[in-house]
Amino acid sequence: MIRLHLPQPLSAGAALVPSLDQSRYLTQVMRLKLGDAVLVFNGQDGEWRCVLSDILKKGVVLKAEAQVRPQTIGPDVHLLMAVVKKSAMEFAVEKATELGVRHIRPMLTARTQGHHLRLDRLDAIAIESAEQTGRMDLPVIDDPAKLADVLEGWDPGRRLMFCDETGGAPVVKALSALEDSGRPWAILIGPEGGFSPQERERLRALPFTTAVSLGPRVLRADTAAVAALTLWQAAVGDWER
Amino acid sequence: MIRLHLPQPLSAGAALVPSLDQSRYLTQVMRLKLGDAVLVFNGQDGEWRCVLSDILKKGVVLKAEAQVRPQTIGPDVHLLMAVVKKSAMEFAVEKATELGVRHIRPMLTARTQGHHLRLDRLDAIAIESAEQTGRMDLPVIDDPAKLADVLEGWDPGRRLMFCDETGGAPVVKALSALEDSGRPWAILIGPEGGFSPQERERLRALPFTTAVSLGPRVLRADTAAVAALTLWQAAVGDWER
Repeated sequence: MIRLHLPQPLSAGAALVPSLDQSRYLTQVMRLKLGDAVLVFNGQDGEWRCVLSDILKKGVVLKAEAQVRPQTIGPDVHLLMAVVKKSAMEFAVEKATELGVRHIRPMLTARTQGHHLRLDRLDAIAIESAEQTGRMDLPVIDDPAKLADVLEGWDPGRRLMFCDETGGAPVVKALSALEDSGRPWAILIGPEGGFSPQERERLRALPFTTAVSLGPRVLRADTAAVAALTLWQAAVGDWER
Repeated sequence: MIRLHLPQPLSAGAALVPSLDQSRYLTQVMRLKLGDAVLVFNGQDGEWRCVLSDILKKGVVLKAEAQVRPQTIGPDVHLLMAVVKKSAMEFAVEKATELGVRHIRPMLTARTQGHHLRLDRLDAIAIESAEQTGRMDLPVIDDPAKLADVLEGWDPGRRLMFCDETGGAPVVKALSALEDSGRPWAILIGPEGGFSPQERERLRALPFTTAVSLGPRVLRADTAAVAALTLWQAAVGDWER
């Protein structure tokens, strides 16, 4: 069944107004008729079965019938991702959303190239990924920020897994040893070309970081993001429950 | 430095003839001049520093100077990937190559849709991925085969990690408990829509399979392939050494 994210509140009988693009998608692409059902979530009220109750010139109206799944939220893990080229950034956002990341924070590091970031496009990719893979909320995607500034204002209660291509602890052993289930985390992925020696030194000296290795092969930044988030979910997140 | 895969034997002084496309890439895209160096690997003789020794109408000639890295080979792990749509298949091949898969075997399962597979295109993606991420060999990519036939002729010495979206053992615990380092493995990823109940029952009954769960969220087939291969490398492969 079609799944849509809408920002409106969901309750029995509520009338929902999708965007014009969503309306066109429902009636012109998916050819829905009056009375056909779709699933709707808004990130707060769970997943609702809704039916197409009106087709107007300015879009369709959906009527919320019943909640079919309660709201859930994944573990508290952020992805701090150095800004990389467009296709890799989009890929990382799509896959990190599937893997349940709560917050995506694009980072400017010493070796970040000046790639332009279209946040509206990244948001749209996250929404589509959440819609298609059954997720009940959306990740928040921030404006780019400087890594140095972010580390300066870091909440020390949040652990930072730092993927160090020059070598760190074997990741499964490192994470399993922490037994840190339930604690907030973040995962930091460097740009093509890696972190500068100064950045690496600073990161390793911080009390909340865990340096891990992602194996003996070179991984592209987007692949490293997916691999690191997978390992985190499997070892510390909600995969083992 | 530019890295190229060439099928020719590599030894000191050997003259190498890249394809016309590769020659154009070197001289027209990357603007290399006579005497400029590139890295070349062929999957057998390690990585060699070569210099551009001739620019002819029908392409360039490279001269092998010295081996800079010895040949290495990753763990013996195959990816059995149900055929999915083109973009997901290409993505899975690119990322599985980065993650060190040795053999990619496209599978036809009960719920596989009739997607056309361009093996030449998948080979080209694997080569580019190996070139760009420093890998010393290429994965072999097979023609599609029926899952039922492949299981029929299975070598029982090779373990099969079967990613079961209806639930399996938590993957890190399951793999770590096996302590199976060094043994040949394969990872099986189902199509959109998953395995049929009959396929699942058969897979679970086979003595060489380990059913694992990839967490509580729905993953697309390509994401599942990357996640499963990552976890396998981290828990049983060469990431912990």
